[in-house]
Amino acid sequence: MHHSEVVQKAQGARAAAKVLATVSSADKNRALHYIAEALEKEAESIIAANAIDLENLKKKESYTKAFYDRLLLNRERIAGMAAGLRDIAALEDPVGEVTGMWYRSGLQIGQVRVPIGVIGIIYEARPNVTVDAAGLTLKSGNAVILRGSSEAINSNKALVAIIQNQLVRAGLPRESVTLIEDTSRVAAQELMRLNQYVDLLIPRGGPSLINTVIENATVPVIQTGAGNCHTYIDAGADVEMAVKIAVNAKVQRPGVCNAMETLLVHADIADAFLPAVIPALRKEGVEIRGCERTRRYSPEVVPAQEEDWETEYLDLILAVKVVDSLDEAIEHINRYSTQHSEAIVTENYHRAREFLNRVDSAAVYVNASTRFTDGGEFGLGAEMGISTQKLHVRGPMGLKALTSLKYIIYGAGQVRQ
Amino acid sequence: MHHSEVVQKAQGARAAAKVLATVSSADKNRALHYIAEALEKEAESIIAANAIDLENLKKKESYTKAFYDRLLLNRERIAGMAAGLRDIAALEDPVGEVTGMWYRSGLQIGQVRVPIGVIGIIYEARPNVTVDAAGLTLKSGNAVILRGSSEAINSNKALVAIIQNQLVRAGLPRESVTLIEDTSRVAAQELMRLNQYVDLLIPRGGPSLINTVIENATVPVIQTGAGNCHTYIDAGADVEMAVKIAVNAKVQRPGVCNAMETLLVHADIADAFLPAVIPALRKEGVEIRGCERTRRYSPEVVPAQEEDWETEYLDLILAVKVVDSLDEAIEHINRYSTQHSEAIVTENYHRAREFLNRVDSAAVYVNASTRFTDGGEFGLGAEMGISTQKLHVRGPMGLKALTSLKYIIYGAGQVRQ
Repeated sequence: MHHSEVVQKAQGARAAAKVLATVSSADKNRALHYIAEALEKEAESIIAANAIDLENLKKKESYTKAFYDRLLLNRERIAGMAAGLRDIAALEDPVGEVTGMWYRSGLQIGQVRVPIGVIGIIYEARPNVTVDAAGLTLKSGNAVILRGSSEAINSNKALVAIIQNQLVRAGLPRESVTLIEDTSRVAAQELMRLNQYVDLLIPRGGPSLINTVIENATVPVIQTGAGNCHTYIDAGADVEMAVKIAVNAKVQRPGVCNAMETLLVHADIADAFLPAVIPALRKEGVEIRGCERTRRYSPEVVPAQEEDWETEYLDLILAVKVVDSLDEAIEHINRYSTQHSEAIVTENYHRAREFLNRVDSAAVYVNASTRFTDGGEFGLGAEMGISTQKLHVRGPMGLKALTSLKYIIYGAGQVRQ
Repeated sequence: MHHSEVVQKAQGARAAAKVLATVSSADKNRALHYIAEALEKEAESIIAANAIDLENLKKKESYTKAFYDRLLLNRERIAGMAAGLRDIAALEDPVGEVTGMWYRSGLQIGQVRVPIGVIGIIYEARPNVTVDAAGLTLKSGNAVILRGSSEAINSNKALVAIIQNQLVRAGLPRESVTLIEDTSRVAAQELMRLNQYVDLLIPRGGPSLINTVIENATVPVIQTGAGNCHTYIDAGADVEMAVKIAVNAKVQRPGVCNAMETLLVHADIADAFLPAVIPALRKEGVEIRGCERTRRYSPEVVPAQEEDWETEYLDLILAVKVVDSLDEAIEHINRYSTQHSEAIVTENYHRAREFLNRVDSAAVYVNASTRFTDGGEFGLGAEMGISTQKLHVRGPMGLKALTSLKYIIYGAGQVRQ
């Protein structure tokens, strides 16, 4: 029987996953160090493969300077990937942890952390994801099927060839990390429906990629990365702190998912806060789109449209709205947010608690910048994206998010009455 | 704009979920007690509605005695539902538990258990699921959208009307529990794709229902209930214990998902074990379908076909295979099992550990009957089915499985450098 590339590779990944599930931490870490070393040693060959992708990109309609920059690999970036793998090697192995054990009717019942099995990653033209994803899945005992985009295919092939050689050198299955070389839509669709071999799909990329996966997948999916994040400045907030947090949340790195996209301001503090924050933001090059009441404070504020409340700009643009109450702020957030990260700046004990309790997002802050939502900042180590769904994991996905808990039961001949 | 019944009810459920998320345990428990009381008090009206369903069923092609029995409600069964609700009220409220809190860069970061939001249950003609699901979702602070089958529609309407009245009496939103009265396929399909309003779908029923949901849903799904469970009798096992466990796993309640469907026997113990277990099983009315080597022990053993290894009989039928090693047993299990529950009967320390480590199922037993896989038996209290997937929860789904963890972060003005 003839099988497609996708099915063949998925079968290989499934077989590898069975082996990986019981590999020791020491063996996995050795493989990670081997790969890190080989990436640095073979940097020239990676850069040569990447150069072909970059050349091809120049001829394409999708070419932009930002796209080119994301695709580009150089010695420094390769060293960064290698450092990332060494960081992953240094993290605690999540596999095998017994999270609890108790007696019941004479049975000793426990839960043990095990790998998920085979994880599919569907992503865009970011070769660093190839190495990151391979490192995190390997460390957590999972096999990974990588399906990158056509623009990065030569870079990805070069990276995966190096990874596979080092896996073999470390005595691990070559198919622990596998790349689907067919970058057609058909191949991606096939992967999304291979429930027999694939346990989990993680799309990493923009909203259209993620929506395509959600629409088409029968394999369970974890949604990541959509971040329409809010900061609410409460009545009576410390204005200096509020300005500092708002500016940081917007401008410190505007192109990432935990950057603020909408600023909500209580009417009672608008007179003190908006005349302070607007020039501070404009100084950083931020375009402000405001509601009617916001616009009173500056002629340069563009009128906000309904769609502004829904938009993740990922850019130096900010929507601003004046609200009359905490309730209105929370309702606005729970309506428009992508449930990623939201913050309140307040001095009031009760409203801080209410905001924490009622805002339904993965990460809810009091008096801090939303920019902290990150595996490293939260102390989880490296991360496989930030989940904005509610099942399995919310927020940064560290190594534990790539495992599941199975029950183990020690008996002495018990039968059910 | 005109909305379908499904969208209207889903919007109502979403609004109710926002309220339920912060309702106190005391209020939720009071509502559960009110509902329990009202079910008993209004038993006659429930039985009258159920009688219409039973009458209708008799005219249908789908009529079987077993179907009729599952659909039937009487005073005793209604009292059982009420008792179930009181048991749920007595369980600890999972919502609000802070599972961990730590400092990092001066930020105090914690995880708090919160309801998932809106849960859709798609199920077959079992009116007890209506009450169970309502009780479990209410206790865990979730709104529920029930979509039962057409055969139970009158029973379900009567039950949900009582539940809703008592919710209102307890000061909770009526739409905390809502029933889709349109039992068409179109309505179910609509529910499966309402990602905007529904956070999770749990299909409860046979494989065809579950597969339909997996194929069609864009809302995240938890698969439950498929149980092709195995028991492996190791070389050197205690034969008396092995017979007791095998018979219990098969016959104590053959129609449920944690019953054994395939028995694997090491060749070295076949001479001692099979002549003991075959008559014991046959005495209980079990039809045995065996491999060639099994058939040597009894002329009444039917030859097993390939499909027998894949079949969840849910009946007094058992597939039996003699294997030459622990490896062969584990490979057979990991190939054919639905990853529900598997057991080894052994006296050997090393093989017990190897079985626990390498069998990739939700519940893996040493020396006990697979029949224990159950929320009550594991000490979780009532359960919303048994998950056979790896994401979010494996095995019995208690109240915690109906919650997720969100991050809460207490700052003092921190911004990202």
